[in-house]
Amino acid sequence: MLDHVAALRELLGSKAVVVGPDAAAYEEGARFDRGKAAFVLRPASTLEVSKAVSYCVRNGLHIVPQAGNTGVVSASTPDMSGRQVVLSVDRLAQRLELDADNRSVRVDAGFLLSDLNAALEPEGLFFPVDLGSNPRLGGMLATNTGGARFLKYGDVRKNTLGLTAVLADPEGTVLDFNHNLRKNNTGVDWKQVFIGTSGSFGIITECVLNVERRPKQCATALLVPSSTRKVMPLLRAMESRLGSYLSAFEGMSENSIKATLEHIPGLRNPFQNGVIPHYTILAEVTRTWDTRESEQSLDSVLENALSEIWLLDDELLSDALLGPAHEMWALRHALPEGVKQRGRLVAFDLAFRRGDLMNFCDRMKAEIRLRFPEVIVCDFGHVGDGGVHFNFVAERGSASAEDPNFERELRDWVYQVVVDEYGGSFSGEHAIGRKNQAYYDKFTTTRLKHMAKQLKAITSPAGLGVVNLG
Amino acid sequence: MLDHVAALRELLGSKAVVVGPDAAAYEEGARFDRGKAAFVLRPASTLEVSKAVSYCVRNGLHIVPQAGNTGVVSASTPDMSGRQVVLSVDRLAQRLELDADNRSVRVDAGFLLSDLNAALEPEGLFFPVDLGSNPRLGGMLATNTGGARFLKYGDVRKNTLGLTAVLADPEGTVLDFNHNLRKNNTGVDWKQVFIGTSGSFGIITECVLNVERRPKQCATALLVPSSTRKVMPLLRAMESRLGSYLSAFEGMSENSIKATLEHIPGLRNPFQNGVIPHYTILAEVTRTWDTRESEQSLDSVLENALSEIWLLDDELLSDALLGPAHEMWALRHALPEGVKQRGRLVAFDLAFRRGDLMNFCDRMKAEIRLRFPEVIVCDFGHVGDGGVHFNFVAERGSASAEDPNFERELRDWVYQVVVDEYGGSFSGEHAIGRKNQAYYDKFTTTRLKHMAKQLKAITSPAGLGVVNLG
Repeated sequence: MLDHVAALRELLGSKAVVVGPDAAAYEEGARFDRGKAAFVLRPASTLEVSKAVSYCVRNGLHIVPQAGNTGVVSASTPDMSGRQVVLSVDRLAQRLELDADNRSVRVDAGFLLSDLNAALEPEGLFFPVDLGSNPRLGGMLATNTGGARFLKYGDVRKNTLGLTAVLADPEGTVLDFNHNLRKNNTGVDWKQVFIGTSGSFGIITECVLNVERRPKQCATALLVPSSTRKVMPLLRAMESRLGSYLSAFEGMSENSIKATLEHIPGLRNPFQNGVIPHYTILAEVTRTWDTRESEQSLDSVLENALSEIWLLDDELLSDALLGPAHEMWALRHALPEGVKQRGRLVAFDLAFRRGDLMNFCDRMKAEIRLRFPEVIVCDFGHVGDGGVHFNFVAERGSASAEDPNFERELRDWVYQVVVDEYGGSFSGEHAIGRKNQAYYDKFTTTRLKHMAKQLKAITSPAGLGVVNLG
Repeated sequence: MLDHVAALRELLGSKAVVVGPDAAAYEEGARFDRGKAAFVLRPASTLEVSKAVSYCVRNGLHIVPQAGNTGVVSASTPDMSGRQVVLSVDRLAQRLELDADNRSVRVDAGFLLSDLNAALEPEGLFFPVDLGSNPRLGGMLATNTGGARFLKYGDVRKNTLGLTAVLADPEGTVLDFNHNLRKNNTGVDWKQVFIGTSGSFGIITECVLNVERRPKQCATALLVPSSTRKVMPLLRAMESRLGSYLSAFEGMSENSIKATLEHIPGLRNPFQNGVIPHYTILAEVTRTWDTRESEQSLDSVLENALSEIWLLDDELLSDALLGPAHEMWALRHALPEGVKQRGRLVAFDLAFRRGDLMNFCDRMKAEIRLRFPEVIVCDFGHVGDGGVHFNFVAERGSASAEDPNFERELRDWVYQVVVDEYGGSFSGEHAIGRKNQAYYDKFTTTRLKHMAKQLKAITSPAGLGVVNLG
């Protein structure tokens, strides 16, 4: 390995090759996961990525592409062998070019989401895939993240105009689909192959993203449905009245809020007398247009819609609290960390037909009591698009928390119900990583695995990353 | 061929196999194009499509999939050999299931767009890809159509949750990606391969589409920019003020309006004194939410935005006419037919970075006078998403109209400028057909053609349709 390090330093410069204690930061996931890298490569341009990949492929070194490493399925850390090479895109953060006429931005894959938005803010623009965490863009593309405003703006795939990818072949071939076109139907849309596939077919080094006008006003409410069966009728009533005003409809379960208020400092309990309801919806409406003084405030738009909904069916809502937005979103965005601190966490990132979502949650919560009495469910998520972060937490020190088979047993059970009984997805917005590889293998047909294998053969035959889609 | 007809009648029923004069309707495109089919297959279910394809592949018969046949690039009619089999999806129009909770519809690929929208209307919903023509859904997916409301709702790709495709292999393999999930990142998103690729990799038989709330009010205006250089600043000013109110920003050139008012009966000239401006924008704002009586009308929202724009820069707009919407849209939607009747039409479906669009149009109009003095440009299109239907019309009886090389010379010139000089697309929303096959071959890298060939090998090795992407 020392020879390789020397050769790669010669090829890419000394900054681009990291060994020893400095490599540790690239061996541990932001939220989960830890491995051991042979060394870490940090190329600073597409050309350097190509050179690095070419060298590794010709020398039989396996590359694990890594961006922000904030995912939850173990898709971007090396294994424990010490033989895998981490290729981080964190120095691919030189170029950020806004095209204001086109309302798009061409940007290197190593930029942090927060840095992109900071650069867009003075222009009144933002990248509309909104997340609680702060990933790098290449990782957002490789996992096709959704986030909390999916309902209005869609996922990363819908907001990507183009990308550049480096393939794991002896040449380190660069494929340039870095179009800034909003429409282009001249054959296969190859960029789709690299989106949401965990870096298996190529390393995304640059992209062109759609950006949107920043909202000019917003109003939020915490809505307490009378029961979980009323969540979907409430969503439909809101969509029918509020149309494209509605920008978020996020669910927060009692357990997840409770864990978060207990473990995350600086959050206020927003509920009357502090009593946390069984299930709460964070609804947001936003205006992206100028209004006149005469126009009603967005708070009253939301209030009026809620009154109308209540007048038509007073059994939908048992309570509704308006604003302030930043406090409500602070609570919502703190949930992942709050839940993590509650105990031993096994996190699921599931998606359903919207109408199935609450039904699934209720059923699983009833069954978990019988199967794993020491385990609680701290679920929250994106009711508006059918996604849910369905988290199981075992009390620290409990039998489940200590049981090495606990996670596998849980995943076997939950995924079978999700896929076979509901036709849902066992990975809504984190793609495939080590944690769900076995379930990809189980639930994907032989035909599609064969097709994925062939796709690897025609893109990155040397293989890339931690998962095997073929 | 008679043996095949008999065998297929046995296999699929007599209704499903059409020969003789009844086949003529499937040999001619709705707007262009004519060929000669061996016979026409009209299967009525995915299973029947599979049986039909399997039979044809095993017997060496080449299939041309056909939906509404309303495209302009000659992608869905048979050649003149009389040996190709047309497989029409027009009887795949049995099943249309709305999932109101999920705001999605599962629908057979043979439904007409108008029939889908008629079924959705009572629920206050619609499929938001809005076109002047009335295609069948399978064709909309195979070409990834955009349409006049792309700016707000995106293209077909963005509104497709799932699909089922039948592959051209000896088994007539059915691939079912007919998910009704809004998010799902469990490996390769294979459905993308079938969208926008002219049926080359499989025949789409069913799909699940996102549907949207119907607008509750709308207001339209014809805007006359002071010059074509002011079009893009005007769009930016409108987007900045109107945000997600803005649902269309369509350009109409003087020549295209003139041709249409002359040739299409029942349209009113909307301009003062009947003088058609050099370039006109049809802008539309829509509300998809309930409003109170106190709220200003959408007409005044639009009017106020225009006044503010005029106050800040009185050189952007030289005129603006408000409503009525149906009249303005009738004019816009009549343009394709109006232009067609003007003379010998060579139609281009181009796309650019938005900022390049008007620059390209101006430049080409100046050059056409020198190169082809008998030819006029009747362009119109989707300025809001960078698309333009750039139409050349040669006076009937002129040398250009009679010249058999005219179309090829024109395409050679225009596509070279579009792709090499502007980095634009020579097919914005009609995909690849016979008319642009040579340019696909020219402008696609050897690497990508090779990848497409491999993709064909792993999906539909027997080949499908009229184009060759590999």
